[in-house]
Amino acid sequence: MRATVIHGPHDIRIEEVPDAAIRRPTDAVVRVLNACICGSDLWAYRGVAARTAGQRIGHEFLGVVEETGAEVRGVRAGDLVVAPFVWSDGTCEYCVQGLQTSCPHGGFWGEAGSDGGQGEAVRVPFADGTLVKLPKEAASDEKLLPGLLALSDVMSTGHHAAVGAGVRPGATVAVVGDGAVGLCGVLAARRLGARRIIALGRHAARTDIARGFGATDVVAERGEAAVEAVRELTGGQGAHCVLEAVGTEESMRTAISITRDGGAVGYVGVPHGGSAGVDIGQMFGRNVSLNGGVAPARAYIPQLLPDVLSGAIDPAPVFDRTVDLDGVPQGYRAMHDRSALKVRIAL
Amino acid sequence: MRATVIHGPHDIRIEEVPDAAIRRPTDAVVRVLNACICGSDLWAYRGVAARTAGQRIGHEFLGVVEETGAEVRGVRAGDLVVAPFVWSDGTCEYCVQGLQTSCPHGGFWGEAGSDGGQGEAVRVPFADGTLVKLPKEAASDEKLLPGLLALSDVMSTGHHAAVGAGVRPGATVAVVGDGAVGLCGVLAARRLGARRIIALGRHAARTDIARGFGATDVVAERGEAAVEAVRELTGGQGAHCVLEAVGTEESMRTAISITRDGGAVGYVGVPHGGSAGVDIGQMFGRNVSLNGGVAPARAYIPQLLPDVLSGAIDPAPVFDRTVDLDGVPQGYRAMHDRSALKVRIAL
Repeated sequence: MRATVIHGPHDIRIEEVPDAAIRRPTDAVVRVLNACICGSDLWAYRGVAARTAGQRIGHEFLGVVEETGAEVRGVRAGDLVVAPFVWSDGTCEYCVQGLQTSCPHGGFWGEAGSDGGQGEAVRVPFADGTLVKLPKEAASDEKLLPGLLALSDVMSTGHHAAVGAGVRPGATVAVVGDGAVGLCGVLAARRLGARRIIALGRHAARTDIARGFGATDVVAERGEAAVEAVRELTGGQGAHCVLEAVGTEESMRTAISITRDGGAVGYVGVPHGGSAGVDIGQMFGRNVSLNGGVAPARAYIPQLLPDVLSGAIDPAPVFDRTVDLDGVPQGYRAMHDRSALKVRIAL
Repeated sequence: MRATVIHGPHDIRIEEVPDAAIRRPTDAVVRVLNACICGSDLWAYRGVAARTAGQRIGHEFLGVVEETGAEVRGVRAGDLVVAPFVWSDGTCEYCVQGLQTSCPHGGFWGEAGSDGGQGEAVRVPFADGTLVKLPKEAASDEKLLPGLLALSDVMSTGHHAAVGAGVRPGATVAVVGDGAVGLCGVLAARRLGARRIIALGRHAARTDIARGFGATDVVAERGEAAVEAVRELTGGQGAHCVLEAVGTEESMRTAISITRDGGAVGYVGVPHGGSAGVDIGQMFGRNVSLNGGVAPARAYIPQLLPDVLSGAIDPAPVFDRTVDLDGVPQGYRAMHDRSALKVRIAL
């Protein structure tokens, strides 16, 4: 079969690789219908996150179950399924609790020895614990597929930020970051009943999506000027709930600074560099909380799925380009140079 | 009247100062019956926290209302009252919400221009918003007074740490810090139903109090060894809820390290130095939360008071020495050299 392989910084190739195959009785093989490229894949692409030459890549996909191991009960050949960005056994204490990202038997698609999502097929460990079934008819619904695909990571991650920030009906929310996760955070905040949603971002194409997702205000400034602008919009107090969807020192500092006393930052931006802007001295006197981390998408997909199917939320607009498998290297380039927000791969 | 005045590092004096007096119609004057010395006063005593020579000091006291301004409705002369460690107007959005520490009209006893708690009397701004009434008969109850006095800061702060850490029935809790706040955190965790409470501390006299307050385990190690010990006690996972009651880089690093994935650190140790050990990279993959800050004691006193009055909790053992006003300088020395845990001042 063919799959995306990373050989080094800026060196993404489509290559012939061994066919995905059942290795353990709890495995399934999924034929990929749709995958996508994540902002976090760019850290590997840019050489910031280390990868071994020849490693697979991609952690977001949906597709059709092709084959299942002898012990798999929850899915069968022919089922349409979506995978969260980590696999998990579904039975350990953490999985039962809904924190599947801490499953001791879990792993991340594309890690050494595993298949990546950006390929024709994927061997899925712990299929029962990992995969979530979708209605079969969605497989041919081009309007619905992108939204379902977003559940694998960005929509679930945006939701995790909103949950971490404590978004509730009537809350004033600010979202730091206008990437796909930040935009999904806007959508998640609206879904949870936020009254006012301030999106921080400088790219009109992206903040237009934010407005479509429910943002009531847009702040184009950065750093101190952004803090000023949000304070001005909130009577000097800041936002009850702030979603941090970037992960840099500056974005975290901004997020904490624009949080109202007693409020919370929901952090989901993969942190880059030490304490990444967390100044506990700044948080202490104002009782600012910090909740979040890597999103347990597996717990959220069943919660969000009905709303995607009903059309109550549609994260599809975060995909602004579609390529086939051969177009993946070009897709990375487009996201790297910011000419694309998020690239969908239709196989 | 006489009060405690700080002139510089290690220079605490008892001096004649102007009598506490009503200045605004919302003021009250409280004749101090009991006050105490706080671990955080030692930062000023040691010269780490800046003070102007001649500034008052002390932020924990209870006493009898002597006089009230024309607009005070909630307390009257003769009432026994306890003061939280900050005053607050009781009417603003933050006060109504229970975050009185963020009251825009609030202040800290002993700040420039205000009376400190370690004196014969205190002018209390916003008496209705600030003071909490106690049963008059407690004034002569030497067994009850120390526990009531602890509500002004250490017991409320320990409770804030427990709330921030999300302590709930059945939880496994760890407490970093064996000072008075950490010990009160143990007591608060037991009150909230923790099943297991691991106290980290090296001083037998203190960890004995911790055991009396409900600690089921004591870890005397520090740093990496402490992390190992707590992990061993918790099946490798760490504690659901960790109370951080020190505020140094090392203690915060320890607190985060011993938190179970998906758990929370309740931070109340006044932070000393930048990000004070918060490594967001370490928190991210494990979904560790950080909640806390300066405790809104005014919100907690009415919640905790019935349990102190009934004897369900008794924080009194944190006081291991009692002095009169003239003994205050000696009390600072004793806490500084750790020969006393917490000094009560009986006037």
